[in-house]
Amino acid sequence: MKKKKMHLLQYMMPPVTHHSSATWKPRNMTMTNAFQWNRPEIWQEVAQIAERGKLDAVFFADTEGIYSEYENSYKSAVRYASQVPCYEPSVLMAFMGAVTKHIGLTMTFSVAGYPPYILARKLATLDHLSRGRVGWNVVTAFHKNASENLGLSVEQYHLSHDQRYDRLEEYMEVCYKLWDSWEPDAIVMDAENNIFADPEKVHPINHEGKWFKCKGPLNIDRSPQGRPVILQAGQSSRGIQFAAKHAELIFTLQPDREAMKVYYNRLKEGAVKAGRDPDDVRVCFGLQVFVGETEEIARAKAALHNSLVPAEAGVTILSGHLGYDLSKHGLDELIADLKVPGIQGMIDAYKHSSSKNITIREAGMLHGRGVMTPQLVGSPEQVADWMEETMKEVGGDGFLLSPAYLPGSLEEFVELVVPILQKRGLARTEYVENGTLRDNLKALNA
Amino acid sequence: MKKKKMHLLQYMMPPVTHHSSATWKPRNMTMTNAFQWNRPEIWQEVAQIAERGKLDAVFFADTEGIYSEYENSYKSAVRYASQVPCYEPSVLMAFMGAVTKHIGLTMTFSVAGYPPYILARKLATLDHLSRGRVGWNVVTAFHKNASENLGLSVEQYHLSHDQRYDRLEEYMEVCYKLWDSWEPDAIVMDAENNIFADPEKVHPINHEGKWFKCKGPLNIDRSPQGRPVILQAGQSSRGIQFAAKHAELIFTLQPDREAMKVYYNRLKEGAVKAGRDPDDVRVCFGLQVFVGETEEIARAKAALHNSLVPAEAGVTILSGHLGYDLSKHGLDELIADLKVPGIQGMIDAYKHSSSKNITIREAGMLHGRGVMTPQLVGSPEQVADWMEETMKEVGGDGFLLSPAYLPGSLEEFVELVVPILQKRGLARTEYVENGTLRDNLKALNA
Repeated sequence: MKKKKMHLLQYMMPPVTHHSSATWKPRNMTMTNAFQWNRPEIWQEVAQIAERGKLDAVFFADTEGIYSEYENSYKSAVRYASQVPCYEPSVLMAFMGAVTKHIGLTMTFSVAGYPPYILARKLATLDHLSRGRVGWNVVTAFHKNASENLGLSVEQYHLSHDQRYDRLEEYMEVCYKLWDSWEPDAIVMDAENNIFADPEKVHPINHEGKWFKCKGPLNIDRSPQGRPVILQAGQSSRGIQFAAKHAELIFTLQPDREAMKVYYNRLKEGAVKAGRDPDDVRVCFGLQVFVGETEEIARAKAALHNSLVPAEAGVTILSGHLGYDLSKHGLDELIADLKVPGIQGMIDAYKHSSSKNITIREAGMLHGRGVMTPQLVGSPEQVADWMEETMKEVGGDGFLLSPAYLPGSLEEFVELVVPILQKRGLARTEYVENGTLRDNLKALNA
Repeated sequence: MKKKKMHLLQYMMPPVTHHSSATWKPRNMTMTNAFQWNRPEIWQEVAQIAERGKLDAVFFADTEGIYSEYENSYKSAVRYASQVPCYEPSVLMAFMGAVTKHIGLTMTFSVAGYPPYILARKLATLDHLSRGRVGWNVVTAFHKNASENLGLSVEQYHLSHDQRYDRLEEYMEVCYKLWDSWEPDAIVMDAENNIFADPEKVHPINHEGKWFKCKGPLNIDRSPQGRPVILQAGQSSRGIQFAAKHAELIFTLQPDREAMKVYYNRLKEGAVKAGRDPDDVRVCFGLQVFVGETEEIARAKAALHNSLVPAEAGVTILSGHLGYDLSKHGLDELIADLKVPGIQGMIDAYKHSSSKNITIREAGMLHGRGVMTPQLVGSPEQVADWMEETMKEVGGDGFLLSPAYLPGSLEEFVELVVPILQKRGLARTEYVENGTLRDNLKALNA
């Protein structure tokens, strides 16, 4: 029987930290460059290594603000580089696209700050210039400082979770209409008759909905993929419903195989309910890999990395996620004693730590070192074994690699683990010739 | 006496036409590539040629819609590629920045569709990744289809000209505050003490004005230039006042030296009134150059180019500029007979054509072949002479080159004209080592 291959994506937060608060620390590990987050070269190198490893895509998370819940101030986030600085991802992706040919360029954009026309246009531009390699991770989030930065109206900021998803559904509808507004063969370039494009094959969208008005057509011809690949990371039940309907690639952070399986099954059932082929809805699990030539080397690396993470950096992020200022409590108080909405979900997610009964400090360490991404530590064979077994047991479609250091941790994975996965028939060995990101996603297990 | 050097910028509209409706026509002239507007390579080549010629910057105009005034439809613009397709310029500039080191990357963004935070963040990202080469051409315009695409409220769309400039002044204020929100030495990267950045050197902006609310700080550290170079092309008296106050580089399309001189003097007087050194307010005049080894070759090229321009393409643009549907009139009616607001300004601008008393068709040709940019046709020496004399007579600071075909017309200018200007001490021969765009602007005549 032919084995199922895994999708592999490289997670990043556009500088300076990603899932790990230690990432910025210079030469903390096997880094080939000191970490210069504000230079394109290091990101271009990451994209090239990912392409060498035949990964599906590189991915950038994004945010339009600084977590300011902890101590009711942005200061802790700035001090610990807790998801700040954070660059505009499409510009960064363009620099990476300029030195690569195959790797997918996928990134988060929130629908909070942009009219759909502007976002649809930006993504279509990048899809053209990268020859069809763009993916968009759709996010509704209005985090507090982002809302304050964008000057959102009080009504907008206080939208309920469900209202945000209603608004998002309409946002997607407008984007789809814009991307479809030029037929594939609209451009004729008939110089003799002065016809650049056939106007009968370009259509206004005349959208007038509850949330948005947009006349169209898009002022950009149809890009190679038409619509970019849609990504999603929804965890709420409404989020999962949205993902099952729209997404082609889904990320999730789950503490163990049991939880992965529950999520995976919910998503696939949702896809069927939404009338889609469940194989088109690919679920990838977040994973922070430490790999070395031997298990001992890997363990030593993980230990060094984890020792470089300050708990406060993670508590700052956790306060942001909860929308609650944890500085009101001592670091040694138990998470389970907090009376905070959303805390039970966190506690469930801590299952992969030794005990549910952890302190704020311990929770901070978990958030600071990987925002709850499970760490996988071992020799190349051990890492490959765990990934293979997880896929077999859970039924997942692949992994989203969260870097503990860059470009070192990706480079080690590509050098040490990918060849084993390829040998076992579990990973891509060639890209589709002149293929788009969607072509490559579809071809993996075709 | 040391001669004054000219600033030189390359104008473009991100694909497919620029100031000339003939640009898209494949191999219409000495093009080294068939014109593939949707591939990065041709734009990267343009940037590299401009850098070889030691120009200050490449420049992209931008619009978020399709001119739909003519026949009350987008169809004519689509047919003739009248400023459509038009790609998002920052993404395109990033691809160009990835293959160059010195050339400035300047582009238009309208303040209509974005909160200031989003635009400030995008420009700061590009300024980081390009090592300080970014310039922003500030535009307030709400053209009709763009407004309809962005879903602007009725109140926003019906802002008066002066209200738009009031709003713009506040927009700039918010951007400046955001760009200044990180002190230059805020980042300390002290790994031992877990301090990435010193939070006391990062400041909220707490802006609450008439038009915008923004808390800040920017979630991006200070970029090499801090604030990007500000460009402007205002023609109205309020526009000129804005430019004199904010802009470091100003573009203008003027029909002849007399008009150039009037504009130039107004700008410099405005700069003095605004308390600025008039040398910091550089005025560049639009120019469409046809140059050949001999005058005859240049004339033949111009004739071919102009014959490839359909009048309707220009009438479509002119209708957009006037906000008036010229299809209600025959192409042979006289422009002077139209009862349209703004028409007198156009008539004045037509002075460089043989007669003020031109028909709609003739006006369309002028708009279609260069949106009223004067054409300069001649041998390399003749072109250099005209440019030198114009600078001497008018007192201007340089030129904005409008391409009739790409990359050919830029390549010819760089190969044939630039060496003459350099030899005469009228053009840059070296960039400032590791200099930003602003460093290069300041150093030219320092």
